[in-house]
Amino acid sequence: MAMKSDIQIAREASKKPIQEIGEKLGIPSDELLPYGHDKAKVSQKFINQVRGNKDGKLILVTSINPTPAGEGKSTTTVGLVDGLNRIGKKAAVCIREASLGPNFGMKGGAAGGGYAQVVPMDDMNLHFTGDFHAITSAHNLLAAMIDNHIYWGNSLEIDTRRVTWRRVIDMNDRALRQITASLGGVSNGFPREAGFDITVASEVMAILCLANDLKDLQERLGAMIVAYRRDKSPVYARDIKADGAMTVLLKDAMQPNLVQTLENNPAFVHGGPFANIAHGCNSVIATTTALKLADYVVTEAGFGADLGAEKFMDIKCRKAGLHPAVVVLVATVRAMKMNGGLGKNELDHEDVEAVKKGCPNLGRHIENVKSFGVPVVVALNHFVHDTEAEIQAVKDYVKTMGAEAIVSKHWAQGGEGAVDLATRVAEVADEDPGNFSPIYPDDMGLFQKIETIAKRIYRADEVLADQKIRNQLKEWEEQGYGNLPICMAKTQYSFTTDPNRRGAPTGFGVPVREVRLSAGAGFVVVICGEIMTMPGLPSVPSAVNIKLDANGDIEGLS
Amino acid sequence: MAMKSDIQIAREASKKPIQEIGEKLGIPSDELLPYGHDKAKVSQKFINQVRGNKDGKLILVTSINPTPAGEGKSTTTVGLVDGLNRIGKKAAVCIREASLGPNFGMKGGAAGGGYAQVVPMDDMNLHFTGDFHAITSAHNLLAAMIDNHIYWGNSLEIDTRRVTWRRVIDMNDRALRQITASLGGVSNGFPREAGFDITVASEVMAILCLANDLKDLQERLGAMIVAYRRDKSPVYARDIKADGAMTVLLKDAMQPNLVQTLENNPAFVHGGPFANIAHGCNSVIATTTALKLADYVVTEAGFGADLGAEKFMDIKCRKAGLHPAVVVLVATVRAMKMNGGLGKNELDHEDVEAVKKGCPNLGRHIENVKSFGVPVVVALNHFVHDTEAEIQAVKDYVKTMGAEAIVSKHWAQGGEGAVDLATRVAEVADEDPGNFSPIYPDDMGLFQKIETIAKRIYRADEVLADQKIRNQLKEWEEQGYGNLPICMAKTQYSFTTDPNRRGAPTGFGVPVREVRLSAGAGFVVVICGEIMTMPGLPSVPSAVNIKLDANGDIEGLS
Repeated sequence: MAMKSDIQIAREASKKPIQEIGEKLGIPSDELLPYGHDKAKVSQKFINQVRGNKDGKLILVTSINPTPAGEGKSTTTVGLVDGLNRIGKKAAVCIREASLGPNFGMKGGAAGGGYAQVVPMDDMNLHFTGDFHAITSAHNLLAAMIDNHIYWGNSLEIDTRRVTWRRVIDMNDRALRQITASLGGVSNGFPREAGFDITVASEVMAILCLANDLKDLQERLGAMIVAYRRDKSPVYARDIKADGAMTVLLKDAMQPNLVQTLENNPAFVHGGPFANIAHGCNSVIATTTALKLADYVVTEAGFGADLGAEKFMDIKCRKAGLHPAVVVLVATVRAMKMNGGLGKNELDHEDVEAVKKGCPNLGRHIENVKSFGVPVVVALNHFVHDTEAEIQAVKDYVKTMGAEAIVSKHWAQGGEGAVDLATRVAEVADEDPGNFSPIYPDDMGLFQKIETIAKRIYRADEVLADQKIRNQLKEWEEQGYGNLPICMAKTQYSFTTDPNRRGAPTGFGVPVREVRLSAGAGFVVVICGEIMTMPGLPSVPSAVNIKLDANGDIEGLS
Repeated sequence: MAMKSDIQIAREASKKPIQEIGEKLGIPSDELLPYGHDKAKVSQKFINQVRGNKDGKLILVTSINPTPAGEGKSTTTVGLVDGLNRIGKKAAVCIREASLGPNFGMKGGAAGGGYAQVVPMDDMNLHFTGDFHAITSAHNLLAAMIDNHIYWGNSLEIDTRRVTWRRVIDMNDRALRQITASLGGVSNGFPREAGFDITVASEVMAILCLANDLKDLQERLGAMIVAYRRDKSPVYARDIKADGAMTVLLKDAMQPNLVQTLENNPAFVHGGPFANIAHGCNSVIATTTALKLADYVVTEAGFGADLGAEKFMDIKCRKAGLHPAVVVLVATVRAMKMNGGLGKNELDHEDVEAVKKGCPNLGRHIENVKSFGVPVVVALNHFVHDTEAEIQAVKDYVKTMGAEAIVSKHWAQGGEGAVDLATRVAEVADEDPGNFSPIYPDDMGLFQKIETIAKRIYRADEVLADQKIRNQLKEWEEQGYGNLPICMAKTQYSFTTDPNRRGAPTGFGVPVREVRLSAGAGFVVVICGEIMTMPGLPSVPSAVNIKLDANGDIEGLS
């Protein structure tokens, strides 16, 4: 089967003018702010107008622990929406924007693949509508204003050793991870250690994705902690008086972006916070707006269900008052085999035993999602080499877990290949009894919240944290931050903190290395492993192959 | 006279949909890539289609040496176009884009003022269509790839002490002027000194503004020198293989932006290189495209005529094959008084003698412009306190210099106030005998070119440069760069290198502190004073007053 490449398929798409896509959702063309002919922002004015509309059903797509075999979560998200539209449902996609920098390193951040993609892919992997540039600007304005405050007399008495606000850039640039700034003499300020993260790791990104409106955005921006004094009391962004100007810089970026699937169905692509030190979902404003305009909104969360779905439920849904009607858990026969112990090069031959051996990873995720009170449908994303016996093994297993696995062929066939999945997902969503609740209450202690996630979701025996960390959590509770949810940062490859332990391991502890307070975003980050907030480029970055061809089309951006 | 503020006037503008503005120039709406409803890019495809059209007349607006009194060069540029359209001419504006960073420091970069403005002013002072963000990204991708090359083995043998390619950010951030990068151990690279400039100072900006098309852009990007080896041989951007990906990042930014004046006339706003270390004009592609679509194109150059007009003629026109049909030299009675020795607080009372005493500054600029073979019209930008006697004094003086001074009241009255000026400028442009030529030939030696500018334009007695600088120029000549034009970087406030010497001084030398090769942009920068490539924020940055008001309108951005 000679399949075309994703970019070939994307380029051959018959895109409709974005106004026609907006029309499908009842957005008048005056309220769409176009960016070229195939991208638009939905105006804040229109968003305010539809706040009273009835909500559609929210469908979350998540997956088993990712493996190098690839599960196809975004592909399934897009395919499911095309499938829903095929069966006559008014459905829209809600996904994250891609980060610019990593495209020049290893690979593109394509939204979907095969015949289940969102377009225009090139633009979405480059500047798109400029949201990330706006976040970079707002973040770095605050940074410049902090150093400027210190330079002009430091009336806030910031301890220059305790400036926690770093700078950001949307580029993989390891040389900027750790720097000494303000060198060169009196006119350049007071030398101090500093550094850059990649833009998606900015707390401003997390806030943009969690804020309900511009007022909420500004309040959250102002509440960010940027530094500490010698007495360790915090200095906030509002003390620097940066929150107003940052909000102005983010005004347009707060409006969700509308694009389309290959089958001309509406897709909101907005925001892209890290899935480790942040919550890893598209923006609340895009999701809530989409729910006012479509009957079914299909969204996804970063990484596997243990991390992404948990944060989606416990952070995003809790804070935004959202409740998923059904969760679609994506699995593949190949990933089951890898969870069952096979290597990446051993996946092309039938091995029913390996499939069966890997199923418990899927099983645990099914149980976990159900524990939030939400029904589960397993989407078995079809690959060419999958055999009937292997597929049946997964189906049988899923049945024993009280759910249903449905084969979906959207990658090869687009929406037509996802009709069975769409039909069942719509049925389950329509029957949703509305039992959703987060797995821990707001008023539980911070450490108890961490334990709840570790024990109930990961199935760890215990959480290991030294006294310093426990004291820090206590201190935040005393300062009034005790009601915040937890944002876990750990490897996505395993329920444990060891990326090599696949399947459904038991008998392990979760060591906490560090905790960080994101006071503006509104969560406590719990770090259980190495977290890289500024990637580097590989020895041969993909940038060396990215160029315009003779037709002016982009080559090398996958 | 209770005049409204610029931003009030801008906000009350009755903007037309950008497609209607494009229609005036014959641009089909399919070939306009909209950014919202009031901004658009002109498609590369359309630009290629009109390359065969007949050119309109090019009109350059420049000024006397700027004074704190303000001359109103942009205001006159806009008012003149509105005036030309009032008298039935098809005319368009071509000006530079504003830099984001400085808006948060001292003041906004408003395009024009009073009733002679380009809108939407807010957007133009913020992210606009993202061009500067694209330049920042392309510039910093190259920077990351250089350090990445060193990290992975440094096969090009770059001397880490001689990396000349700095990073850029569109922010006033003095803390980044000088840094030590790649700290923190093996995985972060080899520590070295580095730093950031503001984006407008990037050679990428200068190149975007001088390139004829995307192919030319990529070639120029590849030709930039980014570092030297221990043997002092240069390493180019193309050696790093960054030129292709940089071009991809700049693909959209290369398309000129179309907006409108308050009177709904077309304005191209594109590119914004520094007027000291670069040439300080809007993009060649915007100017050449505008000339294919309008009968009169009014553009401006940075600083006064000694710097801006000289570079416009000797760099931009030379390289792009352009020839101005007339130069409009902007002067004010107030600025004449300051050149005549008065202080900023002494300008509101009639002082004909001071006016007369200041006129020789204007006179020398008239002579200089004429020496390029281009006719001159003086625009006397009217201020409320100007008296008839003062105005007459300027008119009389200008007549003695073989030119005509015309009072223009566009600031208070819009295009109607500029009808006299427009009428005369159109006449002179139509009569243009086409005698334009740069003041030095390509094949003159680099030092002789510097002397030509210093002696013929500034009226200096000599150029002072030590042997090291002369040797450097010789070396570049031997390397094949001898045919490049010169880009002078000196104070804009005086013909001399001393900002306090107003009027038309004689008997001075021009000391050259440093020379730099911009091999991609294609000029040799000659630095005759302090050049700041990264501004700082003031003690109370304007950012602290910038915010959204209750209506969601932006406050504090002037």
